[in-house]
Amino acid sequence: MNERLTNLTNWLKNEQIDAAFITSPDNVFYLSGFSSDPHERLLGLAVFPEQEPFLICPKMEVNDAKNSGWSFEVIGYDDTERPWDFVEERVKARVHNVQRWAIEKEHLNVERYEELLSRFKGATFHNAEAILHQLRMIKDDNEISLLRKACELADFAVQVGVNEIKEGKTELDIIAAIEYEVKKKGVSGMSFDTMVLTGANAASPHGTPGNTKIQKGDFVLFDLGVIYKGYCSDITRTVAYGEINAEQEKIYRTVLQAEEAAVNATRPGVLAKDLDSIAREIIDQGGYGDYFPHRLGHGLGISVHEYPSMTATNELELKSGMVFTIEPGIYVPGVAGVRIEDDVLVTENGVEVLTKFPKTLVI
Amino acid sequence: MNERLTNLTNWLKNEQIDAAFITSPDNVFYLSGFSSDPHERLLGLAVFPEQEPFLICPKMEVNDAKNSGWSFEVIGYDDTERPWDFVEERVKARVHNVQRWAIEKEHLNVERYEELLSRFKGATFHNAEAILHQLRMIKDDNEISLLRKACELADFAVQVGVNEIKEGKTELDIIAAIEYEVKKKGVSGMSFDTMVLTGANAASPHGTPGNTKIQKGDFVLFDLGVIYKGYCSDITRTVAYGEINAEQEKIYRTVLQAEEAAVNATRPGVLAKDLDSIAREIIDQGGYGDYFPHRLGHGLGISVHEYPSMTATNELELKSGMVFTIEPGIYVPGVAGVRIEDDVLVTENGVEVLTKFPKTLVI
Repeated sequence: MNERLTNLTNWLKNEQIDAAFITSPDNVFYLSGFSSDPHERLLGLAVFPEQEPFLICPKMEVNDAKNSGWSFEVIGYDDTERPWDFVEERVKARVHNVQRWAIEKEHLNVERYEELLSRFKGATFHNAEAILHQLRMIKDDNEISLLRKACELADFAVQVGVNEIKEGKTELDIIAAIEYEVKKKGVSGMSFDTMVLTGANAASPHGTPGNTKIQKGDFVLFDLGVIYKGYCSDITRTVAYGEINAEQEKIYRTVLQAEEAAVNATRPGVLAKDLDSIAREIIDQGGYGDYFPHRLGHGLGISVHEYPSMTATNELELKSGMVFTIEPGIYVPGVAGVRIEDDVLVTENGVEVLTKFPKTLVI
Repeated sequence: MNERLTNLTNWLKNEQIDAAFITSPDNVFYLSGFSSDPHERLLGLAVFPEQEPFLICPKMEVNDAKNSGWSFEVIGYDDTERPWDFVEERVKARVHNVQRWAIEKEHLNVERYEELLSRFKGATFHNAEAILHQLRMIKDDNEISLLRKACELADFAVQVGVNEIKEGKTELDIIAAIEYEVKKKGVSGMSFDTMVLTGANAASPHGTPGNTKIQKGDFVLFDLGVIYKGYCSDITRTVAYGEINAEQEKIYRTVLQAEEAAVNATRPGVLAKDLDSIAREIIDQGGYGDYFPHRLGHGLGISVHEYPSMTATNELELKSGMVFTIEPGIYVPGVAGVRIEDDVLVTENGVEVLTKFPKTLVI
């Protein structure tokens, strides 16, 4: 059994939990090595304190699961079978009477929860994310190598985008060019829909790219990431196209100062909320406090947004091995939207910035 | 109030339900016109039998929500606030004592369900998907136009892919070219990760594209779709590169015959399971029954996989306005993987095939 499964198993023993049923594709991948997007079909990994785990997946993915290195039982079902019948039978063969279940409460839907409630009457349900968040939060050396590579490819993608900027090109033109070059490098997918936003669009933190054309005097905001061997990067850079006005420049310099201050304060022992406050104070002092409407950042790894959330209220203490984003932004409707985002690794003594694309104001 | 919200409201009245809380981005988009991917943050639409609905979303998306045309209340929250406090307060201001809730049981997670359970003690929970599946299943004229366009762009994408086939190119090279050309046409995103699979990879129904190079004598399988103004297409074509052997050709002809028979049988009044059986029998008779391990198809619209599921056991009667995929396949490890998929619209008298890329064996 791999170390990750052993860690989960030890937690089950400590918490006196009889069985865990893990259904989120990212946690199944983390624990089993099997990467799959089952859409609406059931994918599940059952783990027990003493008995062998099993995986259940659509029949047409059984071979893929075995080829991924999973050496325990794999149960396949076809589209006319009821997978929950198999789950119930296999679980009850291993544990006569499950009284305490662990599930992912942020992932499992009510329909599936009701299946478990009706098939395992009287059981109580505990949150497996309590341990899975902690385990996934600290990256091992192999994960760090993959994240470094994913960030290197994100830097490359931003460079492609910056090279493409030209009056009259649309946001979607530039996205097409970025994703083409990145996929030619062997990347299987982006971490999320690539964002290239300009003009008024960039003044929304979650704008949707379209056929807006780039004009001189506008900022162009890139927010993108790649998935490399299952690990995500996430970078934002904002560049000026042509001369910008004094207020746009002030906004840029304020975001940059806030971002760098938070990056430089990153080290073990600091609290997550401290980093958010350091950046937020600089933006407040610049007079833009009302225009920074989101948290400082989020954990990064197999999921592009994962535990922990870097908010003004999170008292979590940073530890070596954590990887998260630092991404303050200022969005003033009608004036400018600027966000600068790096992915950082907490090291023994401080911080390693994994994304390296320059942040000096490029015009 | 738009017709879709009115339909939902009428259902609430008929079922004597006091409030619905809709949280899946696709259903929120269907009902409100606001398209958003909130990741782990809460997005919710509350609908009542008599009172005005409201939308809750991250503060940084409030302007986007209003710009999308939503004219009722929008509540924004930031990353340090507890959105459920706002939901509880606003709901209780509208309905003093919610006894019967409607939620999406296939979507709402246990954590959020527990919020509702603890804040609305004693309430019972009913499945809003009962009505939402029915409403979304029948497409209106505007939706059909958008789906036609999405399918036209999918045809174009396959043509780009076929033009790119060349000895030595990798699966990812071809994906890069397809997505580049499609995005240059103004498409904001693909319905799912584009699949180009060749050789042994194509013999898995859900293979993962990689650096496998195309060789003469192999099939190349394309499975892709685009999102056009919120609506998805989904097409599969399998083409031969160079001479293929007799068994590969027999597999292709069997899949094609099965696919066309199911398409031709599509009309109002036929049962979903009948279409699956028509295709499955042809594949059985060809001797490949064990190598068709999935359902015939799935509904298509705002979601790339939506209600209904076209399985051998689904007794649903087809109705005019339904749009779904027909996609039989045969996957023989070491020999070949072939799937052919069209998107079809059930018309008053028969069927309109929305994807039009030729299906004759291209070598």
